[in-house]
Amino acid sequence: MNEPFAYLVEQLRRLPGVGAKTARRLAYFLMEEPAETVDALVKAIVDARREVGYCRICGNLSTQNPCEFCADGKRDHSLICVVETAAEVMAMERSQGYHGVYHVLGGVLSPLDGVGPEDLRIRELLERLRSDQVQEVILATDPDVEGEATALYLARLLKPIGVRVTRIARGLPAGGDIGFVDGITLAGALAHRQTM
Amino acid sequence: MNEPFAYLVEQLRRLPGVGAKTARRLAYFLMEEPAETVDALVKAIVDARREVGYCRICGNLSTQNPCEFCADGKRDHSLICVVETAAEVMAMERSQGYHGVYHVLGGVLSPLDGVGPEDLRIRELLERLRSDQVQEVILATDPDVEGEATALYLARLLKPIGVRVTRIARGLPAGGDIGFVDGITLAGALAHRQTM
Repeated sequence: MNEPFAYLVEQLRRLPGVGAKTARRLAYFLMEEPAETVDALVKAIVDARREVGYCRICGNLSTQNPCEFCADGKRDHSLICVVETAAEVMAMERSQGYHGVYHVLGGVLSPLDGVGPEDLRIRELLERLRSDQVQEVILATDPDVEGEATALYLARLLKPIGVRVTRIARGLPAGGDIGFVDGITLAGALAHRQTM
Repeated sequence: MNEPFAYLVEQLRRLPGVGAKTARRLAYFLMEEPAETVDALVKAIVDARREVGYCRICGNLSTQNPCEFCADGKRDHSLICVVETAAEVMAMERSQGYHGVYHVLGGVLSPLDGVGPEDLRIRELLERLRSDQVQEVILATDPDVEGEATALYLARLLKPIGVRVTRIARGLPAGGDIGFVDGITLAGALAHRQTM
């Protein structure tokens, strides 16, 4: 057993939400499943890493560049929804309540973790506002402390440009996570967005 | 995003204890982590699958064949501990309460799931008792319904051979899982094993 197994357990522990016991359970599963199951998983990881990249316009994860939303002429390109990560883009799409385009910040402002405005894709957002005919920016960061602070920072930065800046409605449960809320709540929160 | 990402989520859902939301969370993690992290995980899985196999004597997972326990002259080869899976071997070793060898059944009797005696490594166990000078077999299947039934079946099968057959003590919490109990409880349960 020894080395390769212990190393596998160690690597599995780096996954989010996986502790020592779950890592061991996963490792045994990966050792005892038929080879096809494990090969399919490995191939899925390798293929996704190779084929999926960041959209040069909005920063979303996609197999295309620009991504399917930025390249879609049927979507409303005058409306940009700013989210923290690509997971939130997918959550928005599942809500079926949004037909504009996106901008993925790649995180939130968090001074304690050393994350400042220069670490997020804010400069790229400003460039889009300069070159595109954007009429409204919806700030859809999480309704927690960092998300609210980031929304406030962006609102102060963007309003002088003359664009309409809105915040996704607080129909979301406070302290929640946009990536994992149900679609109905999310669609309602989008419909009730308010001017900041 | 689409295809490769959706396929990755689908494959991750096959892991034990991973539902739709956890699979998505893991998939985003695997897309957004540095390439080195993901490469290390993939390599760990591939290497472990290649280097780890089943011991031809006891059925334990090992990089060696025979495994380190079967090949170890310092261990007591007259004492065989019968466990359900390789995970229990590692749990036994962590308890530091056992110095005999092992026999991994590869499951438990479960008529409802269509698992009968011929699906477990019972024939191999009988062969070991025929050829080796085994004096005692400790039945360390889980203290749940299937584990108890399997222990009872094995006790009836092995006692006519003339070997001493014992059952790991019920110091273990009923309905529990040997693979994940603390070492002190497990060592105590080994020390208080009783003749069946």
